[in-house]
Order: sequence, then structure tokens, then C-alpha cells
Amino acid sequence: MQSQVQDTPERRAFYEKIDKCNMTALWTVMSALITPEPKSGCVPFLWKFSEIREAMLEAGKLITAKEAERRVLILENPGLRGQSRVTTSLYAGVQLVIPGEVAPAHRHSQSALRFVMEGSGAYTAVNGEKTRMEVGDFVITPSQAWHDHGNMSDKPMFWLDGLDIPLVQFLDASFVEHLGQDEQPIARPEGDALARYGANMMPVGRARGGATSPIFNYPYSRSREALERMRLSGEWDPCHGLKMRYINPETGDHAMPTMGTFLQLLPKGFTSARYRSTDATVFSVVEGRGRSRIGDVSVEWGPKDIFVAPSWKPIVHVTTEDAVIFSYSDQPVQQKLGIWREDRGNA
Amino acid sequence: MQSQVQDTPERRAFYEKIDKCNMTALWTVMSALITPEPKSGCVPFLWKFSEIREAMLEAGKLITAKEAERRVLILENPGLRGQSRVTTSLYAGVQLVIPGEVAPAHRHSQSALRFVMEGSGAYTAVNGEKTRMEVGDFVITPSQAWHDHGNMSDKPMFWLDGLDIPLVQFLDASFVEHLGQDEQPIARPEGDALARYGANMMPVGRARGGATSPIFNYPYSRSREALERMRLSGEWDPCHGLKMRYINPETGDHAMPTMGTFLQLLPKGFTSARYRSTDATVFSVVEGRGRSRIGDVSVEWGPKDIFVAPSWKPIVHVTTEDAVIFSYSDQPVQQKLGIWREDRGNA
Amino acid sequence: MQSQVQDTPERRAFYEKIDKCNMTALWTVMSALITPEPKSGCVPFLWKFSEIREAMLEAGKLITAKEAERRVLILENPGLRGQSRVTTSLYAGVQLVIPGEVAPAHRHSQSALRFVMEGSGAYTAVNGEKTRMEVGDFVITPSQAWHDHGNMSDKPMFWLDGLDIPLVQFLDASFVEHLGQDEQPIARPEGDALARYGANMMPVGRARGGATSPIFNYPYSRSREALERMRLSGEWDPCHGLKMRYINPETGDHAMPTMGTFLQLLPKGFTSARYRSTDATVFSVVEGRGRSRIGDVSVEWGPKDIFVAPSWKPIVHVTTEDAVIFSYSDQPVQQKLGIWREDRGNA
Amino acid sequence: MQSQVQDTPERRAFYEKIDKCNMTALWTVMSALITPEPKSGCVPFLWKFSEIREAMLEAGKLITAKEAERRVLILENPGLRGQSRVTTSLYAGVQLVIPGEVAPAHRHSQSALRFVMEGSGAYTAVNGEKTRMEVGDFVITPSQAWHDHGNMSDKPMFWLDGLDIPLVQFLDASFVEHLGQDEQPIARPEGDALARYGANMMPVGRARGGATSPIFNYPYSRSREALERMRLSGEWDPCHGLKMRYINPETGDHAMPTMGTFLQLLPKGFTSARYRSTDATVFSVVEGRGRSRIGDVSVEWGPKDIFVAPSWKPIVHVTTEDAVIFSYSDQPVQQKLGIWREDRGNA
Repeated sequence: MQSQVQDTPERRAFYEKIDKCNMTALWTVMSALITPEPKSGCVPFLWKFSEIREAMLEAGKLITAKEAERRVLILENPGLRGQSRVTTSLYAGVQLVIPGEVAPAHRHSQSALRFVMEGSGAYTAVNGEKTRMEVGDFVITPSQAWHDHGNMSDKPMFWLDGLDIPLVQFLDASFVEHLGQDEQPIARPEGDALARYGANMMPVGRARGGATSPIFNYPYSRSREALERMRLSGEWDPCHGLKMRYINPETGDHAMPTMGTFLQLLPKGFTSARYRSTDATVFSVVEGRGRSRIGDVSVEWGPKDIFVAPSWKPIVHVTTEDAVIFSYSDQPVQQKLGIWREDRGNA
Repeated sequence: MQSQVQDTPERRAFYEKIDKCNMTALWTVMSALITPEPKSGCVPFLWKFSEIREAMLEAGKLITAKEAERRVLILENPGLRGQSRVTTSLYAGVQLVIPGEVAPAHRHSQSALRFVMEGSGAYTAVNGEKTRMEVGDFVITPSQAWHDHGNMSDKPMFWLDGLDIPLVQFLDASFVEHLGQDEQPIARPEGDALARYGANMMPVGRARGGATSPIFNYPYSRSREALERMRLSGEWDPCHGLKMRYINPETGDHAMPTMGTFLQLLPKGFTSARYRSTDATVFSVVEGRGRSRIGDVSVEWGPKDIFVAPSWKPIVHVTTEDAVIFSYSDQPVQQKLGIWREDRGNA
Repeated sequence: MQSQVQDTPERRAFYEKIDKCNMTALWTVMSALITPEPKSGCVPFLWKFSEIREAMLEAGKLITAKEAERRVLILENPGLRGQSRVTTSLYAGVQLVIPGEVAPAHRHSQSALRFVMEGSGAYTAVNGEKTRMEVGDFVITPSQAWHDHGNMSDKPMFWLDGLDIPLVQFLDASFVEHLGQDEQPIARPEGDALARYGANMMPVGRARGGATSPIFNYPYSRSREALERMRLSGEWDPCHGLKMRYINPETGDHAMPTMGTFLQLLPKGFTSARYRSTDATVFSVVEGRGRSRIGDVSVEWGPKDIFVAPSWKPIVHVTTEDAVIFSYSDQPVQQKLGIWREDRGNA
Repeated sequence: MQSQVQDTPERRAFYEKIDKCNMTALWTVMSALITPEPKSGCVPFLWKFSEIREAMLEAGKLITAKEAERRVLILENPGLRGQSRVTTSLYAGVQLVIPGEVAPAHRHSQSALRFVMEGSGAYTAVNGEKTRMEVGDFVITPSQAWHDHGNMSDKPMFWLDGLDIPLVQFLDASFVEHLGQDEQPIARPEGDALARYGANMMPVGRARGGATSPIFNYPYSRSREALERMRLSGEWDPCHGLKMRYINPETGDHAMPTMGTFLQLLPKGFTSARYRSTDATVFSVVEGRGRSRIGDVSVEWGPKDIFVAPSWKPIVHVTTEDAVIFSYSDQPVQQKLGIWREDRGNA
């Protein structure tokens, strides 16, 4: 380890002098910049859905989706308050759309994922196609794609919003445009994208697409069924149970370029092997109950609860029921940059 | 165009002399080697399924699947007889498995596709997993994967076999091994591969696979439904109707490295725009009736008929019913080598 | 654009309430998070080499390379003071190694580039091979590669250090190890990597490498000669003159996964077309003189000066001599994430 | 192994009957189609350059390059006579251009490589740029690129032509066009492509190219120097000595999509470990002397001799002098298709 550099009056005078030239001595800050292990303010935390829901319903009375543009409560990591971050690089919020409301069309550099927590029948429109959203559906609004939401059902609809807002901000590459209309024009029947790109086939002649999956709704019915089917093989990963990564079928890569998205099944009575990785992760429980130890913190979770695990903190999940958990992180970013690391303990 | 090189006695003497040294003058053969357009012996042809079926049932009485190893009748292109080729680079055959029979386990360098024409409930086993086969299913036995077939149903089962036998022969890279058992050991429940790799998700931690899709049965039920769903958008390709390419979801590439496989829907009363490409193609009709003009030849087709179109011959399809056609060609080979070409006429 | 959301006592009370639950209303911060255009504190600035040099020589008397681990003065963007950043995502410093000194061996997640400004004959050792450094050489110390520096010459050696320190910090993925020795063991003769990987050939049987180029010194002599040769074609890019991207020859991608590196030739009397892009860029002048207008700021530059242009600020270069400029930015990161954008004006 | 299927009168009658329907029983030909190991007519053979040269000079008197279009003697594998093939998939010829001659501009689907054997100063023009050719230079004329040759020197110029003619013929995808002029227009100075793409940099803004390297002359001076430099590390591959693969720097893949090209250095007194692979290979000696055992055949070679090794025949090289050998094969084709295999013996 780097030894502490000694402070002297001469050195202090030097530091002050170069400060005026917009220079700083590396040796005074190096151990803070290049740490032996990940070391951010990000802490483990769990938000109970009951609390989120109550606050959201109150928000529903205070502001319309239209006035708010998006009626969302940001889940701020307690260690990173005032920064609109759930981890160092990612954002999480919970969005509420009340029956009859629309969240008007805009588009931006930021990629967004939606993971449906409660309700049925609201829609997201992307690229001229609407998709109805059901609990457990994973919906993508890609970077620079026009998107709007509406709720034609008679119940409030809640979903988790995951965005790469801090990342785009950090890279200083944010653009946003507003369509000036509540809804974008609809050009294709519902389900077209899933049929066209999600059946393990691609249309002949289609030019290879962008960085984001052309599928924009991965229905829970299909994902859940796949997990149930795989369970028959009895091959459980000691750290993850059965954990699946959503893919872009045009490339096999993560479904989105900036956020990795996962769905995992942990059987009742499962205790996972200690696992850590450098991608801080947001977990959103769909089914089941259990508790997770994350570093020194324990969280108890049930359906719709959301919790976050920081980079490199060891995680152990213990289930008391069959559990299904959605999660997302910046894993694809770290993998593309060659710095992602995991530690599977002895598993 | 290259002018004809004149023949002289001196030149003839020279040709004879160098012939002894295993040399040949390029200018005497160049116009045959490097042609202005594709120019092989491959011709358009159609095999009626009724004829194939009759011959196959007779074969069923003459030889067992076990003695034959595979009870298959090769469809030989009339312009390439004696070479076991349906196009210059590919092979086609029709395989029959009678109730109670097995076609014993072997593996080889050659990749094979199966497209089910008639029957229900026979299986193909690949990599420790069995898959039941239904009409219209597209099944892959990858290069060097152990595979065997059996028919536990009470009806004969017919399917189209497409292989890259001539290609592997041409490259002089054939290997085959016999397991010495009729059936390979089964390690995974049926449907596991489709659940694991076919739901637009991939298992976490899976190392990127080989050149062939890890899905080995693309069920017709799902593929057909996708086409029907896409039809609602009303976006027909003038040349192809709705034509889908089966993909390897780990890469977005063709499902197999040596053969492109496609399923297309042509609506009733459709006349396709004139189309040609350099990948000679084998078509296998699933549903519907129509006729196709291929260069100067017309073929009339109905369910289960098989026809072949040579490289660069213009094709026009005319349907009298909604038609669904499976097809395969060496398109991925030509694309990887940078020599594939298509001509969409004025479409 | 989003209208300002009105503040009311009820809303204020609500904000305070949810604040206790680690939640924030998106609509109060949305316009700051998702901006219509890049909008960070990063500002244009130029450091004169004469000033850097003077400060560095003073540092040379105050601390040894060994005590400092690396004797580097960080160039801090005036708009981002106290954060050790030259742009929002990248770090720049100038390193001095005095004759006879060594900067001891360590390795870390952070990737580093060195661009030599003054001196001759110091070395960088990477992966068991030493490379001697000359002015204009671009040297890489890849993520997690052991590296150390030494100066066996009789003159002080100055180089620009570019690192992705802020990026790795942001992603919370920093690891560092110290070898406990000044110098790593040397296993290969000097120049081996350049011969092995830099001659447009690759050793047979070599497994595809990592994300970083296996070449770790791109000598100026070769790069400069290429530019001079290309100049004969007279094809100048209106925005960039002749601008080359250093590549990883195993992939054709940027030489490093997190930083794009470039060398460009602007002929005497050239005025570049207005250009902007979302990757804030650090420029290091090798030869020649000129000035650059960056947004509303003008900087005059000569050999060894370093200047920075923020994201999306229009840049115009005007040269009074033939000029050669090295530059680096986070372009590969933004491109991999699908958010990089450029605006070539009318060029 | 497959047992021989018994012949019976009934079966014979059946075979005749289905023959009329363009069908053949697989079981009668299967063992010839799917062989346990590669098994073609291709045999090992060596052409002495002295013999080639003599024949070529005689050809030089019998026909002009213009009348011949290309004055080339094809090296035909003795086991594949009359097919213009040196291996099952590739073509080899030796081309002579006499001082003052031109071989007129054409372009075709076939990719060609030139490897210079004797002479100095003839040129190949590709894509508007001329390159002067020296002994040992490896020159590419990519698929569909206009190319012409001329000899402005005062000595005859001999080079090896390697083409994928049999492959393109097999895939039935040949197109050729003649420019109608001896020489294509020259738009760029000599050396531009090598400077632009060969210095481990790429021009900014260049769209990713095609399947073939944008470098079209890999000068021997640079390749040879790299080998000599690598030799200092003393790391010899037991099978290959120091063997380098020419690459496309935009992708890291083989320089050409259909032919792998290699340059290897075997030191004096080296006996290589037994090696075999499925890509039959053409070797062209540049420097040195030795002998090679290929299967059951031994060949003695010296400078400019050309020899061929069939698929899967074990090769052992023994050198009596430092030797440098160029070689080419269809390795990239087999690798892309997932069927390439090698056997390094115990190395």
C-alpha cells in the first residue's frame, strides 16, 4: 500500500501556488482516487412498496402526470442524497399513472426500463407501437426513441423506472426533445415488435439495428414460464438460483447498452452462496419472500419491495418462499469497458 | 468480354509439355472459371411429395433405419446427378422413421437441419435432450453434436433433411463418429433448451457458444403465430411477402453457420416481384398452393412439395391460397465470404 | 420544453415527508437531470507547458518519484476544481521522472495513456517488456497490467498522463495492487510487442486478447510518417485536417476501451470547419502553433501546450504553422453506449 | 463404423426406379459422403521454380499478357487434374509480366492474392492506387475491386497468384467485368493505403469497411523485419517456428475473407513437430532450404519453390538454413463455418 506522503511547509506552499494554475499534486489525493477496492458512498437499502405506494397515491392527488411530465418518485440511495441516484451510476424511480392519464411523448439520450409492479392495462408507446403492460413485464424505451404512457384501465398503475440518468450526466451527453403532443402517432398493431423480433427469427433484409433490443416488451408470462421450465432440469447456480439475462436477439448482448436486466428464480428454502460483483444492483421483488444480507446490512423483502446492493458488497439471499426477482445494474457498461469483476466465493 | 485466345500448333505443343509438369495455361480455361454470371449445372426442379412418400414407404419395407443408419432418399438435382447434391453446395433428402424405429446416435462435421413434413411425435435427441417433432418444426443437429432419432408414435414420420455435405466434402473436412449405441444418454428434460435460450433471455454466466444456435427446435406453432401476428401490420415485402430468417439468439446471425433457414408467408393472390440471388435455394411448402416461375421453368406446388431454385435464376411466386414455405440455402456462407448478391428487380 | 412545476405549501410538505423515506419528486429536478443539451461545469482551458514545466521542476525538488509513487501534477478543469478531473469523465496529469529515478510497479483497474512531451530514453515497462519513450510516442498501460517507469537518461522526462480515473470511480470499480518492487521482471526484448502485433500480422494461434491493444508503444516516428505520407493525397477533412484514430489491431476498435486517442495534422494556414461532439477532449500539441476557438473562449497554443474542450462546445482551429496535435476523449465509451453524437456544421 | 448395406435384387430394382425420380438412396453412398476423416484426391506435390520459370518464359514468347488477359500457368494438383485446383477449394498459378506489358483492368467476385517471387518494380493497381511490387510482398486484389498490372522495369516479373476460384465456382456466385481499358485511372499517390490503414491507426470517420483488408500491399521489408525482431524473444512454436497471420487491421481477422495468408520463419536446423489441420495449404518458399514430409511424401525445397499439403496430412518441416515461407489456405472459410480442426500432435 502507498505510504502517506508527509506534509511540510514547503510542500504546502507549493500546493497553494499550483492551485492557482489549476493544478493539484497527485500524491495528495491518489489514495482517494485509486482505491484498493470499490469505495463509494452507496449503501444497501430497501424501500417497502407499501410506503412507496402510499406516497405515490398522495403524489397522485398533488400533481397530474401531465404537469409533472412524469409522476415519479425517485428512490435516492441514502448514501448519495440529493443526487437522484440509486447507485453511483444509475437512477431508480417509481412511476404512477392514474386511470385516464397520459404521460406526454418525449425522447432523450437516456435509456429507460420499466418493470411493472402493480396494475394492468396501461400502455407504453414506443416507435409507433403501443404495448399493454402487465405485472412483471419488462418494457424498454430506448435512447432517443419517442415514448409516452397512458392508463386506459380503471386502476392505478405502478412501475419501477430504471434509467442511466447519472451516467449520461457524467458523460455530459444529454439531449431531450418534447413532441408537443400527448401521444405519438401509432403505426403498427400491438404485439408487432414482439412477433417480428421475439420469435427467434428476424425479418429478411432488416439492417442490423442499434445498440438496444428491437423487442420493447418482454412479457412476464413468457419469462416466468421459461424459468419454470428450466427448473425441471434441477441445475441451480449456487449464487443465483436460476438467473437469466434479458438479451437483444440481434446481438445476444444485454437488451440495453447501459443497463443489464435480469430475472431470477430462487426456490423456497434456498440460501445463496456469497457473491459480489462490481455492478451495484437494484432488485425488484415480483413473487415470494425472503431476506438478503448485503455487506453488514440485512433486508427483509416481499412482493414489490425494492432494494439496492452496492458494488462489491457480498450478497446472500435466503428465501422462505419460491421467489422471483427482477434486477438491473450497469454490468454491460463495465463489461464493455473491461473492468467488470465478480467474486463467486467458493461457489 | 475476354476474346477467344487463338490456338496454334506451337501453343498446343506447349500445353502438352506443361501438362506433364502439372501445369495448365490459364488463358485456355479462364472464361469457364471466372464467368460473367453464375453458371452451374444446377437446374430448377420440383419433387411432388406424393412421389417421395410412395418411394419412401417402399424403402421402409426394403431396409430398416438401423441397417441404413439413416433411411433417407436423397433429392438429386437433375443437373447434378450422381453427386448427391440438390444445389452445387447443399444436400437435401427426405427421411422416414417408422413407428418403433431408431436411427442410431452418431456425430459428424456436417450440420443438419430437419424440417418436419408429416407425422407427429417422433423425436430427435441432441446434446442430451430429446425434442418431439411436429409438422413445420425446424430442428437442428449441429456440427459435431451427437444425435439420434426415434419414433414412439404410431404413424410414420417424414421430414426433410438439409445438410452441408457437399460443402464439407469440398473443403475436405469431414469427420464422423458412431456412438455404438442407438440412443445417447438423456440428461435434460424436454423443452429445456427452448426455455433456456429461446425466451429472449440467456442464462447468466453462460460462455458465448459456438457457431450454431443453442435452440435446436424452433416449433412451428410459435413461428407460424409470429407470421400471423406480423400480417396485421400489412407490410408485405414485394419479393418475399413476410419472410423471416431463423436466428441464433446468441449472435443474431443465421441459426446455423452453413445454412440459412427461412419461413415465409405469401398471402392468397400474391404475385411476388422478380427476385434473384446467388444462393440457390431449396423450398419446402408447408401450407397452401401456388406456382413459381424460376428462370424458364414453372413449377406448381402444394403442401409438402419440395422445389429448388438455382443461383441467380429470377423467381416469381404466384399463390392461389395463403401459403407458408420453409426454405434453406448457403446464404450465410456467401455472406461471410463477402460474395452474396441479390437483385430485387424494381422492388 | 418542460414548463416549471409550481410550488405550493402542500407540495413542499410532501417533499419533506418523502425526503425522510429517501425519495424525491422527479418533477422538481427533472430539467436539471435530463437537459436539452450537454450542460456540465466543464470549461475550455489551456495550460502553457512553460508553467507546467516550472511547477514540475519545483516538484522534482520537493518529492521523489518513489515517495510520491508517481510524481504527477493533475490538470484540473477550472470548472471542476477539487475533483481531479480535466473533463467530467477523464483525468489528465503531467508526470516528471528525473534521471536515475523509478516510479515503482503497481497495477490498477484504471487504464492509462502516456503521451511524451519532453525528454528521451525513459522507459515504461508493461507485461514484462520495457519500451523506451521518445517525444510524441503514445504509450499504453492497460487496465490491470503491472507497470513501472524509470529514467536512465541524463535529462528529465515529461509526459502527459491520461486516465479514466473519474469513470472508474463513478462506476465504483477501482482495484489497485502494489508489486512491492520498484521494477517488474523483464521477460521479453524491447520492441517485441510492436513487432509481434504492430506489423499488420498476428501470431498464429494467439487467443483473441482483451479490450486493450497488445501494442503498448505507438512510436511517433511511424505515426508522423503516416500523416506525412497521407498528406500527398491532398484529402483534408474540413473539420479535422488529417485525423487518425489509434487502433487495437486485433479488433479495429479504439486502442483502449475507455479512451479514444487521436493524432492529427493541420497544415499551415488551415481554418477548420466548426465542429462539436459530445466527447469532451484533451488536446496536447506536438508541433506547430495556432489558436482554437472553443465555444466563447479562444486559446493560443504552441508545442507541448495542453488544452481541453468540453462536450458539445463548437471548436474551430486556426494554424499559423503546420501543426500536429494528439488528443484523447471518452469517445469509445459513448460509442459503445450508443450516445455519442457529433455535429459537423456544414462540413 | 457403418456396416456395408447388403445389396439385393429388390433393392437394386428400387434404386433404379427412384433414379428416374431424381432420387438416390442415401445408404448406398453415405460412407463416401460423410467420411471418418478428410479424404479427397488432393495429394502433396512440389513445383520447382526452375521448371515453372522455364515454362513461363516460353509462354512469354507464345502469348502477350494482353491477349491472354493474364499470362498465368495454373499449378494443378496432380490428384485433381483438369479442374484448375491446387487444393479442393483453391487455385494457384504463376503469373509473368514482361517489361513494358500490361495485364488489363478487370474485376470479379473472386479474391486474389499475389506473392512476389522474382523481379522488382512491376505494379498492381487497385482502387485507384498503384503499388510497386518487390520480392516477398503480399498484394491483395479484393473481390470486385478493379485491378490491373504492369511492368515498367527492365526485368520479367514473376509472382504466385492465389485465388478462390474453385470456391466461388462451387458456390455458383461468379461475376466478372472488364473495364475496357488497360489501366484504371489513378487517384491516389503510391503508398497511401499503407500509410492510411497500416500504421496501427485508422482515419477518423471512416465507415467500417468490407471483408477484405484496406491495406493491399504488405511489404516484405516490414514483415521480414517483424519476424527478425520476434526471433530475439526465443519463443518458437514447436509446430510452426514463428508463424504470423496477415490481418485486416479493421477487424483483426484474416486479411482476406476466403484465404488465410501466413509468413513463417523456421531457423536453421529446426525440425517441426508433427502438425495437421483441415485446411490444405500452399507453401511458397522465400528464403532458405529444407525438406518437408507431408503424409507419406517428402519434398525438398529451396527459394521460390511451391508445394502443397492436403487436408489432414501430417506435416514435418526440417530446415538446413534459416527459412522464410509464405503460405495460404482456406482456413478463414473453415473457421467461419465452425469446421476447422487442427492436431498439434504432442506439441
